[in-house]
Amino acid sequence: MKTKNIKVGIVQRSFNDDIELNRKRNLASIESLASDGAQLVVLSELHDSPYFCQCEDVDNFRYATSLDEFMDVYAEAAHDNKVVLVTSAFERRAPGLYHNTALVFESDGSLAGKYRKMHIPDDPGFYEKFYFTPGDLGFEPVETSLGRLGVLVCWDQWYPEAARLMALRGADMLLYPTAIGWNPDDDSDEKKRQLDAWITVQRAHGIANGLPVVAVNRYGFEEDPSGHTSGIDFWGSSFVCGPQGEILHLCSDSAPEEALVDIDFQRTENVRHWWPFLRDRRIEHYSDLQCRFKD
Amino acid sequence: MKTKNIKVGIVQRSFNDDIELNRKRNLASIESLASDGAQLVVLSELHDSPYFCQCEDVDNFRYATSLDEFMDVYAEAAHDNKVVLVTSAFERRAPGLYHNTALVFESDGSLAGKYRKMHIPDDPGFYEKFYFTPGDLGFEPVETSLGRLGVLVCWDQWYPEAARLMALRGADMLLYPTAIGWNPDDDSDEKKRQLDAWITVQRAHGIANGLPVVAVNRYGFEEDPSGHTSGIDFWGSSFVCGPQGEILHLCSDSAPEEALVDIDFQRTENVRHWWPFLRDRRIEHYSDLQCRFKD
Repeated sequence: MKTKNIKVGIVQRSFNDDIELNRKRNLASIESLASDGAQLVVLSELHDSPYFCQCEDVDNFRYATSLDEFMDVYAEAAHDNKVVLVTSAFERRAPGLYHNTALVFESDGSLAGKYRKMHIPDDPGFYEKFYFTPGDLGFEPVETSLGRLGVLVCWDQWYPEAARLMALRGADMLLYPTAIGWNPDDDSDEKKRQLDAWITVQRAHGIANGLPVVAVNRYGFEEDPSGHTSGIDFWGSSFVCGPQGEILHLCSDSAPEEALVDIDFQRTENVRHWWPFLRDRRIEHYSDLQCRFKD
Repeated sequence: MKTKNIKVGIVQRSFNDDIELNRKRNLASIESLASDGAQLVVLSELHDSPYFCQCEDVDNFRYATSLDEFMDVYAEAAHDNKVVLVTSAFERRAPGLYHNTALVFESDGSLAGKYRKMHIPDDPGFYEKFYFTPGDLGFEPVETSLGRLGVLVCWDQWYPEAARLMALRGADMLLYPTAIGWNPDDDSDEKKRQLDAWITVQRAHGIANGLPVVAVNRYGFEEDPSGHTSGIDFWGSSFVCGPQGEILHLCSDSAPEEALVDIDFQRTENVRHWWPFLRDRRIEHYSDLQCRFKD
């Protein structure tokens, strides 16, 4: 890592159909957090648009962007505010070839690196396999002036393999821009279990790898334009935890928030001395992790 | 799985230097839980002895047992009480070759299978690398009349690889006999972080794999016979959670307890329909999980 402590700014907000307005608000949040001292700013998944994957509709490809167009907006924001910036784009790579792509900008406005979402969900209300080709860049942290950022996206957050691979490649922290919420028809017990599971599994990636975790979600209700479902109530609850999974900050489940959180990288070093999990992995017995299933 | 619902009995207790007394109490707990309806009983790690790994002392090999001797005691308990029984032995396999071994008995008293602890810790107060050769049986669930038991032991609980491999081999649940506690010199914040991390990471194995988890720990203070450390305050907190990580039962951190908990295997089926994580693993990108580190 390059520094011992960093200030991370996270932006939890809602989005609507007006891309220009969403961008304007995102840029204002970046500026606000930077002026409060943020060195790293993390936006949530697909932060320029509504969560269009609630239905399969070819018209929604209008939300896609070329990386050049997208970079024009956010590279400038990183440069102007002198922050390392983690963003999320609906990438139009070629006609008929789209990805869910996180772009990381260095504080001088250069592109530090990108990550194409590797695990793609597909379940009622989250029809992402229709829109996104699974990533082809593998699990590679992005080298920045603040350290190596293990950027993963949303559905990746359920996969210990993704977090571990980032850790094995020297990630200094794990970051999850995400868009996840409740089916309003579920009862409150089920909603509680889902939110708790989402927080728990990501904290565990921090624990198992001795790394801090930053998870940034949108909040607020978005209608299903097809009318087939009751829409999604995005549950916010963006959080930052340390390398023992200890919560450093947890946002509301129902309000916008710009939060500034201190991360102490020395804790990773210390915790990995106490709990040296990487030391004892039985790698000679892990080959079946590459199997779909052992029938 | 063979059945839809099972009643699991867990035994959280303290142990002392009197092996015969420890065994007598364990047998009484098994009988008591079975008479209350338990079909599966799970004991904690190394339940016949104090936690002798607090120091490196060749005299402690006296706590080791041949599997034949150990089986005589616990096979009979499984048979007499008609329960599937998960036990934990300090196995003397050959002169100078010892393992930390979980033995699973079928309810007719036959040996259903065994698991030799794969990940071996070694840190102040937990000098297990001195005593135990890492397991050579791999990660293989034990087939029983109640389903396939993914039995892992203690330090394994920090390794998502171990849980995943058990799931990929068709485990119906994950079980962790364990012996973990606090250094009494740590402050209460650190103690809280450690206990919370321990619960969180195991719940997450349940979540990531859609499986129920049973973790059984000892409780109570044990002195360090060498006098080099302040001993260990074993933190109890044995628990059972469901496949979304939802806590079904959590024991005290400072008292003995025999608990009977219902596990509904249909929940696994349902949760895996909602959250089909096994479907989307990017196995073609997981080969580096077999690396020690990617320098």
